[in-house]
Amino acid sequence: MPFPLSIAANDQTANQAARLAEARYRQDQDLGTAHWNETVETLLSHRSVRSYLPTAVPASVVDLAVTAAQSAPTSSNLQAWSVIAVEDPGLKSRLNAISGDQRHVEAAPLLLVWLADLARIRSLTTERSRPSEGLDYTESLLLGVIDTALAAQNALTAFESLGFGTCYIGAIRNHPEQVAELLGLPPEVLPVFGMTVGYPDPKVATDIKPRLPRRTVLHRGRYNAANAGDLAAYDATMRGFQQEQSLPLIDWTELVSRRIGTAKALKNRENIRAALLQLGFKLK
Amino acid sequence: MPFPLSIAANDQTANQAARLAEARYRQDQDLGTAHWNETVETLLSHRSVRSYLPTAVPASVVDLAVTAAQSAPTSSNLQAWSVIAVEDPGLKSRLNAISGDQRHVEAAPLLLVWLADLARIRSLTTERSRPSEGLDYTESLLLGVIDTALAAQNALTAFESLGFGTCYIGAIRNHPEQVAELLGLPPEVLPVFGMTVGYPDPKVATDIKPRLPRRTVLHRGRYNAANAGDLAAYDATMRGFQQEQSLPLIDWTELVSRRIGTAKALKNRENIRAALLQLGFKLK
Repeated sequence: MPFPLSIAANDQTANQAARLAEARYRQDQDLGTAHWNETVETLLSHRSVRSYLPTAVPASVVDLAVTAAQSAPTSSNLQAWSVIAVEDPGLKSRLNAISGDQRHVEAAPLLLVWLADLARIRSLTTERSRPSEGLDYTESLLLGVIDTALAAQNALTAFESLGFGTCYIGAIRNHPEQVAELLGLPPEVLPVFGMTVGYPDPKVATDIKPRLPRRTVLHRGRYNAANAGDLAAYDATMRGFQQEQSLPLIDWTELVSRRIGTAKALKNRENIRAALLQLGFKLK
Repeated sequence: MPFPLSIAANDQTANQAARLAEARYRQDQDLGTAHWNETVETLLSHRSVRSYLPTAVPASVVDLAVTAAQSAPTSSNLQAWSVIAVEDPGLKSRLNAISGDQRHVEAAPLLLVWLADLARIRSLTTERSRPSEGLDYTESLLLGVIDTALAAQNALTAFESLGFGTCYIGAIRNHPEQVAELLGLPPEVLPVFGMTVGYPDPKVATDIKPRLPRRTVLHRGRYNAANAGDLAAYDATMRGFQQEQSLPLIDWTELVSRRIGTAKALKNRENIRAALLQLGFKLK
């Protein structure tokens, strides 16, 4: 790659940068144009897609996305993840029934189930009569989950750059033991999330969802709780977005409160510690 | 974004695709060229960079990378993460001293510390006299860690697309309570990993590290343990890479066995469960 790669600003990139910054923050958050390129534009253009055409995703595209996933960093090159491509509608429906029962999982021609996979490492050490005590610790689960997320996000970026739509399915963690049974997972493999993939239905418009101001999440040198002072303004920002989308008007802070208010609101994920132990993780 | 965006294959992209597939797998893993673009090329070109020029990373680049991070999907739009930019050499050294003491952390002009942040959500519910019992569960830690990793990986891709070099620092989890103290973290905020960022030193060559064959990590419809049958071949692949890099020759399976063989090999991360409780996570 050329170093440092910098794309000369022109009117088109300036407009595009300003448009995407406005969509993401709904307020002045200057991005400049000195560092614009196609990749940055792909990343900033992200929106989740929940309406798909029935057309299958070409196998060559899945291969390319998995190659992108494998190109992501992985802790100590342990590569502690796997992914299962589910195209069979019956299996996809059964997975969906225990994972939030969402219309877009039915609609998507492809569901990828991303797995934190300690089994491959456990079995290679066992086969070589070597100890693997380190895998018994909570750290190894975290490492596997992080490896999985980094890989999946690379795949998502590759899919989106090629014009495919995607949506993460966190609800795959609602009943991980049942997912494990349906997919024949060995012990010490956690379904971390699903990802629907397909050609976006061009009849359904999707929009960029506004996020918290950049200064809320970006701290300098030290954590500054005062960064979170703008949450009321973000409530107003989200109401503007909801209005455009003809969604019910509700404060973001209210949505958050409902989402994490009770154990029950976690939709059985409050039992994930027990599920992890049942899946064979030691969690020391 | 045009739909579906497909770049016409030509000789140059065909060569580039073949070159990157060869570098990543060291064996025939045809990628084709029907779906090639600049973003895919950026993703497949990833290599960690550990040698940097002392030049500061422009603030506008950090802003853009954080905007890319905020553009990543986030579970239920909870945005359960923060990031702290550390440029002060003294603070960076102190963090490094408790996080693996690696030369490249000293050399990098910028260390980003990525945080799973439940504190922002906890405090907004508390301020509004609303319950937040859901945050007490292991699921909420996992959600925060996943949100953090997806965001960080978008930032990494943005940095690399602009010609900057990066390296994740998992050792930030060696002593998370001490990191929390140095950075003034409130309860329920976990430093997930660091990320060094800088202009790569052009005098130091870096190469693409080969990964396991794609068929090892990509399963179809059901987990297939037989996928892992190629680990001996990968040992040979990695030896070829080590030879080119003038690194000591050692099997990957041996490296893995050492890395996770004992609790002690985790370099204090075997205590992360206790550290999480000390940081205020309930882990129910």
